[in-house]
Amino acid sequence: MWAKPGHILLEIMSELVGNLLVAQSGGPTAVINASVAGVIQEAGRHPEVIEEIYGGLNGILGILNEELIDIQEEKRNSIEGLKHTPAAALGTCRYKIDFKKKPEQAARDMDRLFQVFQTHNIRFFFYAGGNDSQDTADKIHHEAVKRGWEMRVIGVPKTIDNDLPHTDHCPGYGSVIKYNATTVMEVAADVGSMATDDGSCCIIEVMGRAAGWIAAGTILAKRHPADAPHIILLPEIPFNEAGFLQKVKETVAAHRYCIVVVGEGLKDAGGKEIGADHTRLDAFGHPVLSGAAEVLEEIVHGKLNLKTRTVKLGYAQRAAAHCASGLDVEEAVACGGAAVRAAVEGKSGFMVKIVRISSKPYRWTTDLQPLGDIANVEHFMPRDWVTEDGFLPNEKFVEFAQPLIEGDLDLPQEGGLPRFSVLEKVRIEKKLPPR
Amino acid sequence: MWAKPGHILLEIMSELVGNLLVAQSGGPTAVINASVAGVIQEAGRHPEVIEEIYGGLNGILGILNEELIDIQEEKRNSIEGLKHTPAAALGTCRYKIDFKKKPEQAARDMDRLFQVFQTHNIRFFFYAGGNDSQDTADKIHHEAVKRGWEMRVIGVPKTIDNDLPHTDHCPGYGSVIKYNATTVMEVAADVGSMATDDGSCCIIEVMGRAAGWIAAGTILAKRHPADAPHIILLPEIPFNEAGFLQKVKETVAAHRYCIVVVGEGLKDAGGKEIGADHTRLDAFGHPVLSGAAEVLEEIVHGKLNLKTRTVKLGYAQRAAAHCASGLDVEEAVACGGAAVRAAVEGKSGFMVKIVRISSKPYRWTTDLQPLGDIANVEHFMPRDWVTEDGFLPNEKFVEFAQPLIEGDLDLPQEGGLPRFSVLEKVRIEKKLPPR
Repeated sequence: MWAKPGHILLEIMSELVGNLLVAQSGGPTAVINASVAGVIQEAGRHPEVIEEIYGGLNGILGILNEELIDIQEEKRNSIEGLKHTPAAALGTCRYKIDFKKKPEQAARDMDRLFQVFQTHNIRFFFYAGGNDSQDTADKIHHEAVKRGWEMRVIGVPKTIDNDLPHTDHCPGYGSVIKYNATTVMEVAADVGSMATDDGSCCIIEVMGRAAGWIAAGTILAKRHPADAPHIILLPEIPFNEAGFLQKVKETVAAHRYCIVVVGEGLKDAGGKEIGADHTRLDAFGHPVLSGAAEVLEEIVHGKLNLKTRTVKLGYAQRAAAHCASGLDVEEAVACGGAAVRAAVEGKSGFMVKIVRISSKPYRWTTDLQPLGDIANVEHFMPRDWVTEDGFLPNEKFVEFAQPLIEGDLDLPQEGGLPRFSVLEKVRIEKKLPPR
Repeated sequence: MWAKPGHILLEIMSELVGNLLVAQSGGPTAVINASVAGVIQEAGRHPEVIEEIYGGLNGILGILNEELIDIQEEKRNSIEGLKHTPAAALGTCRYKIDFKKKPEQAARDMDRLFQVFQTHNIRFFFYAGGNDSQDTADKIHHEAVKRGWEMRVIGVPKTIDNDLPHTDHCPGYGSVIKYNATTVMEVAADVGSMATDDGSCCIIEVMGRAAGWIAAGTILAKRHPADAPHIILLPEIPFNEAGFLQKVKETVAAHRYCIVVVGEGLKDAGGKEIGADHTRLDAFGHPVLSGAAEVLEEIVHGKLNLKTRTVKLGYAQRAAAHCASGLDVEEAVACGGAAVRAAVEGKSGFMVKIVRISSKPYRWTTDLQPLGDIANVEHFMPRDWVTEDGFLPNEKFVEFAQPLIEGDLDLPQEGGLPRFSVLEKVRIEKKLPPR
């Protein structure tokens, strides 16, 4: 006697029925909303197990405050439009549940989170974010097991920094390097056309505190040996001032101008960030980085007496939906969808990862990795993906990065500017006393 | 007896036959090459009077060095591609023929220029640039008359700063404000989604030394009263620190974040640029501006203890062909074409200007203005286009600016990045001794 496959599937899937909660965390990207759209649209395909679809406002912080919205009240067009809307449509946070530094607060937070989950019958929880966020998801997964609250927890990868391990790359990364490489091409055309015999230098500062993936990505603008960028300074490789100045001089002698890309977290030989303002700390206690380009400008102008200008793209680079990579959006949506399918299939405690099948032609799929393998592990540029002198990524990096920026989008426009989705954010009635 | 009109026209047009020289000057824009394409393509329609088409490398500086290229050696596709290529494809310069400060050098330069014109039988000269460049064109026009060298000199307007008088606006301006407004929308989405109760502020520095047109243009990102930009600081309006801080506080109280756009040339009540580094001067002896955003960041962070970040778009904004305005490209091409038609019709000593026929719907045409009316005159934002408190442009400005950013372009791409035209630059044989 054979059981009908459909019948078996239905039994497994109907094991756990309840509500879904999705939230976003950490620094936004151009495509983190695309992942949320992927979660929501896939969730809609499983009405037999997913009853209500909720969004948590401002990540874990909003959930602690029971600030949930009813996604079913949003227009389907608004959800589709999230695929082209930068930033975190649900709001985000940098809040960390830290059992080491603040054990009592962390214990209280966990209790409160599970009060919210249980009160609203959250059985499927999806958290889109980077290292810290995957760590939070991992803790929630283990707490759920410990507390006997059956809930499927799946992390959705997100970070422009591309520093998550185990995934081939991170959604958000392709878009930031597409925008930055485009900017390098355009700025180089400008600076090159202005260059006189006196020469000139332009230093473009991009994000990347520890890992140089973002800075490295601008190499894609270099189609010919003479093209910019001429020098890329990665946070992984200690700044060699003499070698750098020599390289600037050689480049200006050859081409009359020199385009330098610097990752904001560039460090000196002693490991100190050259652009750090140590008088100011961010929410995690790291020094605020703001000045790598300015410091380099001082060095180049001061020691070579060369006309030098700076560009600091800042938040503009991670929010540049108007220049997003088509592949990046597609993968971000797919990661959201894969997370929901994994949860519906009974998985919990995993992050969705992107697996590269081949580079030429580029083919990919998604898979799962235990959250514990991801949390708080940073993935750096391999040293053998950079030239020996350390000033440019090599062909191994180019093979890796090139496919990630391909594909353009036909973005909705209004009056010559992008039209982004704005959610209605209809609140779910609070049932708990304030935190 | 009636003369045939065609016959008369032919007689006038055949009056002057010779070669054409086109060159670019000053800071590049996203569309200055589109004007050159307009000149070249229109010139091709007048083979009866325009024999050879030459490009002058690096503006007046290259012409002084007899560095001319043969445009007929360029591919037609390369010329068409100039419409989507930022920067100055022919190279540019900031060289000024200054009879006041350097009379002897200026006299020598003029002699040399006319040696080059006469040696290469230049009878049609087109110079695309801003105030200084129109001044140069004006001087060349008068010198030609004085020297009895029959040559038609027409200026083609170009400047992101939008500070040329008599023209409704300048080619290059629509594209820079489209890119900057897009960036403001994207950064605002990012900062807004990160905002916690502590609040945050982001200061975006844009170009504009004397005139605030570029900063003002970002108002187009503001579709609703709560939208960014919340404050726009114009160089024309002396910085009122107390009023500014009060406005930042009110904005953060209302929206939890505040987006400030500042024109790099913002001045204090004493007329001193707040971001000027007076230890460094540019080619014209003006202090290098680099720090308005940083100065404001210090003020906001220091006095309000508010998390504050900066973005400095620098050259990226004027080179952003990937986000150019369709109308701007169309008008830039048309200005180039109109310049050639005017010259062929016998005009000299004029700049092409854009004339607005109506705003809703936007309709326009081109006309001519004597170069003497343009040279060295700066056109500022009218005070009654700005709100009384001076912190935002009003609806009069919006009506003016809105049409200028409309229309998108289908840009040629390669590997996920723009494909720009690169000219072959086949040199014309030098016939003069070196300068």
